[in-house]
Amino acid sequence: MPLTEFSLIDRFFNAQTMSREDVAIGIGDDAAVLNVPPDQQLVAAVDTLVAGVHFPASATAASIGHKALAVNLSDLAAMGARPTWALLALTLPAIDEVWVQEFAAGFFTLAKRVNVALVGGDTTQGPLSVSVQLFGCVPKGQAIQRRGAQPGDQIYVTGTLGDAGLALRQILADAHCPEALALRLHMPEPRVHLGESLRGLATAAIDVSDGLLADLGHILSRSNVGARIRADHVPRSAAFQTQLSNTDDDWYALPLSAGDDYELCFTVPLSRSAAVHGLADRWQCAVTHLGEIVDEPGLKCVYEDGSAYVDRGRGYEHFRI
Amino acid sequence: MPLTEFSLIDRFFNAQTMSREDVAIGIGDDAAVLNVPPDQQLVAAVDTLVAGVHFPASATAASIGHKALAVNLSDLAAMGARPTWALLALTLPAIDEVWVQEFAAGFFTLAKRVNVALVGGDTTQGPLSVSVQLFGCVPKGQAIQRRGAQPGDQIYVTGTLGDAGLALRQILADAHCPEALALRLHMPEPRVHLGESLRGLATAAIDVSDGLLADLGHILSRSNVGARIRADHVPRSAAFQTQLSNTDDDWYALPLSAGDDYELCFTVPLSRSAAVHGLADRWQCAVTHLGEIVDEPGLKCVYEDGSAYVDRGRGYEHFRI
Repeated sequence: MPLTEFSLIDRFFNAQTMSREDVAIGIGDDAAVLNVPPDQQLVAAVDTLVAGVHFPASATAASIGHKALAVNLSDLAAMGARPTWALLALTLPAIDEVWVQEFAAGFFTLAKRVNVALVGGDTTQGPLSVSVQLFGCVPKGQAIQRRGAQPGDQIYVTGTLGDAGLALRQILADAHCPEALALRLHMPEPRVHLGESLRGLATAAIDVSDGLLADLGHILSRSNVGARIRADHVPRSAAFQTQLSNTDDDWYALPLSAGDDYELCFTVPLSRSAAVHGLADRWQCAVTHLGEIVDEPGLKCVYEDGSAYVDRGRGYEHFRI
Repeated sequence: MPLTEFSLIDRFFNAQTMSREDVAIGIGDDAAVLNVPPDQQLVAAVDTLVAGVHFPASATAASIGHKALAVNLSDLAAMGARPTWALLALTLPAIDEVWVQEFAAGFFTLAKRVNVALVGGDTTQGPLSVSVQLFGCVPKGQAIQRRGAQPGDQIYVTGTLGDAGLALRQILADAHCPEALALRLHMPEPRVHLGESLRGLATAAIDVSDGLLADLGHILSRSNVGARIRADHVPRSAAFQTQLSNTDDDWYALPLSAGDDYELCFTVPLSRSAAVHGLADRWQCAVTHLGEIVDEPGLKCVYEDGSAYVDRGRGYEHFRI
């Protein structure tokens, strides 16, 4: 498609982005030039959403714009970083002005809420996909890593789990999907501020994008420890509990193994665990205790009576449509 | 495809990347953590290559890996920045270990040559596309912008123009394409060191990715000036001159309007123009004088006798295959 149409997009995005004083050169040159405060480190993540894999063709443009930024905000939240700037690589089959406008609305509504400036990007023609590169800053040496969990640390998760997975199950089965669940799948709410508050408190953190068992597993392997968590403590939303009963196989499988929740799973020393309640109050976000880190390698997930939850390896399912 | 296969890729890339002391946290956490020196600004660019649009299906994996990094290095060179770190968003239809290995070889051969560390990325399933986010540093306030050209400044371009465009013409026509031209298209050589040397010398710079007339036009519009350049001064390679004669329409059209050359076009005050020859010697790279910046808006491209070159608006053609 003609470059002039892409220029229109560039101008469209350029016109909508917020300004930040730390952006020396934004959209419109060969590259962006940005000021990282001298006492801070740069934090950078990239995530790509591909049509038909990470979202169905029926997803609204606004939800795609929101989610492409949200998944990266979630990565930065898991590092305890404050998001600052983004680059957007947008590949479109053709220019559809209404689509682009709605996409931008979804992207910028979230970007403005978390004070992120779009500072550059690239628009190309091809099968629909969106790749967002997100930058943030963290005080030197204070980024939260996956590898800091210690035996005795308590394990927590924010919000509720399994909602996005249940929405996906319903959509793939052409079954009814309540709005509350669909929103969790299409418009995930990254835990930006709570993540930042974890600095100096959490010993390790990760965002739950591939499923709790898989993602907590990353903390365990990087920290060279094990964990014991309670399957029956995993938090489920009211919408989830309305849709499923606890005799349904997915009552456990979805919160433990489905992806796309974008909650934070983190570990806190036992001596500091009282501070976690303050976080929940401050950010109006449930924080649930799941279990604790142990010396012995492996992730044990048990019911109240001590019997083991058996993961049937559903793992994370992408859309296949 | 199973996540385990993607983990294999992650490990593969992780194993090959070079180390840099300014990488606090690299591949393997939710995001990378990087140290920007306090006297420097961060420079960031992103470019996406889509199969069938930016490269033909027949392109080798190594050339795709090389080019995806090279086009971003070219953007940073045009800012006078020194490249430091990269993120890689790779979308693959399926895992082909040989393909991934060759892609990585092309990427890392160039990355090591210019001292760039891969610090993170995202691998997803979908139609083949490669998006590289490249970071660099520049001393505060010294980035070269498009908007700094002043009347009287002299206009230069590095290397030769039109080679990539001629290669593309030959390939699209299923005609013979000499190796020297094909290399310019598939394995472009970004002017990394020369670009860095332009700091404090060039008043404006851009990389020639969309064609000289279009890209110089960006400098003119951002600087609010015009230019007069000589069509017959545009540098052509020996391979180009062997393939085409000066009676061929494309003798002018390709060097002036075809894209993908990744040379640098820049402006230098007349009083400093003698320093340009030193650059050419130092970096063993031809630098050709094209004309000068003038007050009057518009880009005048003329022959030796003063008659105007007429741009037939070929512009930049992507692959359409």
